Amino acid sequence: MAGFRIVLVSPKNDGNVGAVTRVMGNFDFDELLLVDPCAITEEAYKRAKHAGDVLRNARIVSSLNEATEGCSLVVGTTGIVTDSEKHFVRIPLGAREFAERTKGSEGKIALLFGPEDSGLSQEALGKCDLLVHIPASEEYPVLNLSHAVAILLYEIHMTGAQSFSPSEADEVEKEKLFEFFSDLLDAIGYPEFRKEKTEIMFRRMMGRAVPSKWEFYTIMGVIGDAVKRIRQSESSRGKDQTP
Amino acid sequence: MAGFRIVLVSPKNDGNVGAVTRVMGNFDFDELLLVDPCAITEEAYKRAKHAGDVLRNARIVSSLNEATEGCSLVVGTTGIVTDSEKHFVRIPLGAREFAERTKGSEGKIALLFGPEDSGLSQEALGKCDLLVHIPASEEYPVLNLSHAVAILLYEIHMTGAQSFSPSEADEVEKEKLFEFFSDLLDAIGYPEFRKEKTEIMFRRMMGRAVPSKWEFYTIMGVIGDAVKRIRQSESSRGKDQTP
Repeated sequence: MAGFRIVLVSPKNDGNVGAVTRVMGNFDFDELLLVDPCAITEEAYKRAKHAGDVLRNARIVSSLNEATEGCSLVVGTTGIVTDSEKHFVRIPLGAREFAERTKGSEGKIALLFGPEDSGLSQEALGKCDLLVHIPASEEYPVLNLSHAVAILLYEIHMTGAQSFSPSEADEVEKEKLFEFFSDLLDAIGYPEFRKEKTEIMFRRMMGRAVPSKWEFYTIMGVIGDAVKRIRQSESSRGKDQTP
Repeated sequence: MAGFRIVLVSPKNDGNVGAVTRVMGNFDFDELLLVDPCAITEEAYKRAKHAGDVLRNARIVSSLNEATEGCSLVVGTTGIVTDSEKHFVRIPLGAREFAERTKGSEGKIALLFGPEDSGLSQEALGKCDLLVHIPASEEYPVLNLSHAVAILLYEIHMTGAQSFSPSEADEVEKEKLFEFFSDLLDAIGYPEFRKEKTEIMFRRMMGRAVPSKWEFYTIMGVIGDAVKRIRQSESSRGKDQTP
């Protein structure tokens, strides 16, 4: 996977710098570079929370050229997407598309974020190999700096993240549950002509719920017990009726 | 988006409330509800920027029950994902999966975010139909409140156009189903000490499945019939035993 360098160009609010640092920690990024930043005070460290080391290790430089040194791809972020394709400098990739395209690429990628109020300058944008934007409201598309960083880093993180899932029930267990459900329908005298449809519905619904093993066993237990109760009662009633 | 209500439970920092408001504006969400919040000062409006109207129109209530009134799905957000699948109360969907599953669904969905320091309480989590988390660093998974909101709303925004989905069961119908399930547990003599846990599990599983009205009624019918059979058999056995 490519290494990423997060570059904040002339950030004006050190609380924002802290918030950016924290979210870098949240998504396992650790290389921060500040170009000509505001003073970094306690407020920044306060907001960086447990990612204070990222901030302490941040390099500070005075020019964009220094900031992108050693990077094989320089990526600018922009909140504003022009309608006119003539302004080619500003035609960007969406954050998700960008993350997917650069997944697994080698070399260092610099992600540039501009000052809070004005974004990256035309000059800075001109130095970028690629622009990225975050699809947002047409009426109010300009995100807070740290929100923009959060979403872009999240998208990059997502290309590699194993999505969490508790151990799922396997096929045999699932089939067992569907058998139990079918038994229950029989036990309650469910109309034969509706049975198949209801069985499929239950299967689909369980499919969407993606239950864990534990959930499967619990539901299976409840259904199994219900069937047993009905059958027992019936057989004991049956016996009572026998002379 | 009309279908979502953003609920901040006991936010402690009004700057965060402002940041949340701004990102709501960025992704076209406008219904904000604050449960027992900190004082909302100028700082919040400053950070809300052009989304100040969302903040001005925010409703303030004192209890979670008021906050979720009229919602057909109550969704809790959680930064911590347990390893043990037995702690079913905390098995969440990823933000992307959640957004995709609820895409185009009808009815109002409440998205609950807990206080900055502690997150949603166990009690609040117990009231949720569904939990959502944002996949993040294993070492430092706890996001800043407004970052968590930003990413979740971004994911919902990214699902884009509304697609067809069957009408979902509403709150009253759901509660009815959960009552029936509870009756079933009683009818089969389910151990009292496990009952609550199993009820919450069932609620969560149904939450993840996002069933249609038709599915709800069908499952309710099956469970209701099972309860009736067990009760009838028992009462007839009871009679048989009477001299």
